[in-house]
Amino acid sequence: MATPQKRSKTTGDEAQNEDESEILEQIDACQNEIDAINEKASEEILKIEQKYNKLRKPFYEKRGEIIKRIPNFWVTIFINHQQISGILEEEEEECLHALTKLEVEEFEDIKSGYRINFHFDENSYFENKTLTKEFHLGSNQEPSSTSTPIQWKEGKNLLKNLLSKPFNNKRKRNLEHKTFFDWYTDNSDPVNDEIAELIKDDLWPNPLQYYLVPDIEIEPEENEDEDNEDDYEEEDYEEEDDGGDDK
Amino acid sequence: MATPQKRSKTTGDEAQNEDESEILEQIDACQNEIDAINEKASEEILKIEQKYNKLRKPFYEKRGEIIKRIPNFWVTIFINHQQISGILEEEEEECLHALTKLEVEEFEDIKSGYRINFHFDENSYFENKTLTKEFHLGSNQEPSSTSTPIQWKEGKNLLKNLLSKPFNNKRKRNLEHKTFFDWYTDNSDPVNDEIAELIKDDLWPNPLQYYLVPDIEIEPEENEDEDNEDDYEEEDYEEEDDGGDDK
Repeated sequence: MATPQKRSKTTGDEAQNEDESEILEQIDACQNEIDAINEKASEEILKIEQKYNKLRKPFYEKRGEIIKRIPNFWVTIFINHQQISGILEEEEEECLHALTKLEVEEFEDIKSGYRINFHFDENSYFENKTLTKEFHLGSNQEPSSTSTPIQWKEGKNLLKNLLSKPFNNKRKRNLEHKTFFDWYTDNSDPVNDEIAELIKDDLWPNPLQYYLVPDIEIEPEENEDEDNEDDYEEEDYEEEDDGGDDK
Repeated sequence: MATPQKRSKTTGDEAQNEDESEILEQIDACQNEIDAINEKASEEILKIEQKYNKLRKPFYEKRGEIIKRIPNFWVTIFINHQQISGILEEEEEECLHALTKLEVEEFEDIKSGYRINFHFDENSYFENKTLTKEFHLGSNQEPSSTSTPIQWKEGKNLLKNLLSKPFNNKRKRNLEHKTFFDWYTDNSDPVNDEIAELIKDDLWPNPLQYYLVPDIEIEPEENEDEDNEDDYEEEDYEEEDDGGDDK
């Protein structure tokens, strides 16, 4: 046990100091028993969370299928979300019109990590149908994250294209990542991935709130805003019809 | 359901808008099912917490009895704790040397509130043996807190005495409350009681850490610091011996 470094010295008497360290050890032993109870409590709570994660899953899946029937649902969520809109470049928004499904999957033991799956319609930017960013945060290994490599189509690599242009995002906040695909491909700091955490803990539990009401007030700039709105209207909606029974 | 206020208008077509609001209602229904599962999960987790609160209780009580055998344990904890030391006036420290036991009791249902009991030895400041500050934070009623009125001894009312002096605390941080007993008696904002929450969630789960290692670095000021240390040494230790079997 560490030597007491407390500021209030009760006495200089050696005998009493020894006595005190004995009592401190008894307190410590008691504290260890409390800690053991805390650990058991955490384990039990984890089990409950696992159980309810399983129960939630079919509803999340059902929700995902219904959401698919609304064109541009997820890109709208991103645009309406204060922090995430801050990393959305105009051409990335364009590209994310093809995002039909977003999924967050916690690993079975919850504690060790999670993955975010982005499912895309055929699009003019890349070949992938699914991009996955996966976080391994368990205590048995070094934290790490991986992302499915993006198979960009000829001349459509947004990371390269954006590098050659001046950065153009009126909603830009002071965030670590400049653009969405910069965030997606960057796996240098898996422990403090603010965007991934927002997707997992804020968007995923209830995305609808951001569809209905934007989280941000954007200053209207007549010309440019009209341009933006046109972008949302022209995308290939036909391709996004996945047989929803309301159509 | 609220009208969608999203920024990306997909179309001006009335028919499709109605269609969309129907789909949104389906998403909302699905979300409600998820919310119901969340609520059941919270209830189950609460039960677990209640169970383990009961299991922890005897160990907390045992810990409290052992702690009593160390003179000035709690006042030392307060002094070593960065935020709490910020509200400790010199004469209050003096008075808190008589604090032999501190207890945090969560109410049976955990959610509705908790109380902090301060048990005192006979002392020259007030008649009370126990001062209790109690928080009612449940959702069925307005949040409120109460504190046992302090029966100050003649001329010893620290609240009055401190008012008449310039404030004298070198460790003072920018806190809402000026002094410990000012905090104790103030029940005007029970919901944001930072000090009470620190006692409940930081000190109480593991006080020993603050006994052994101060949370703060205090600039040594030769003369004044020596004065402070003298304060801790002169107090009536005899009175605080409650029959600990090591003595």
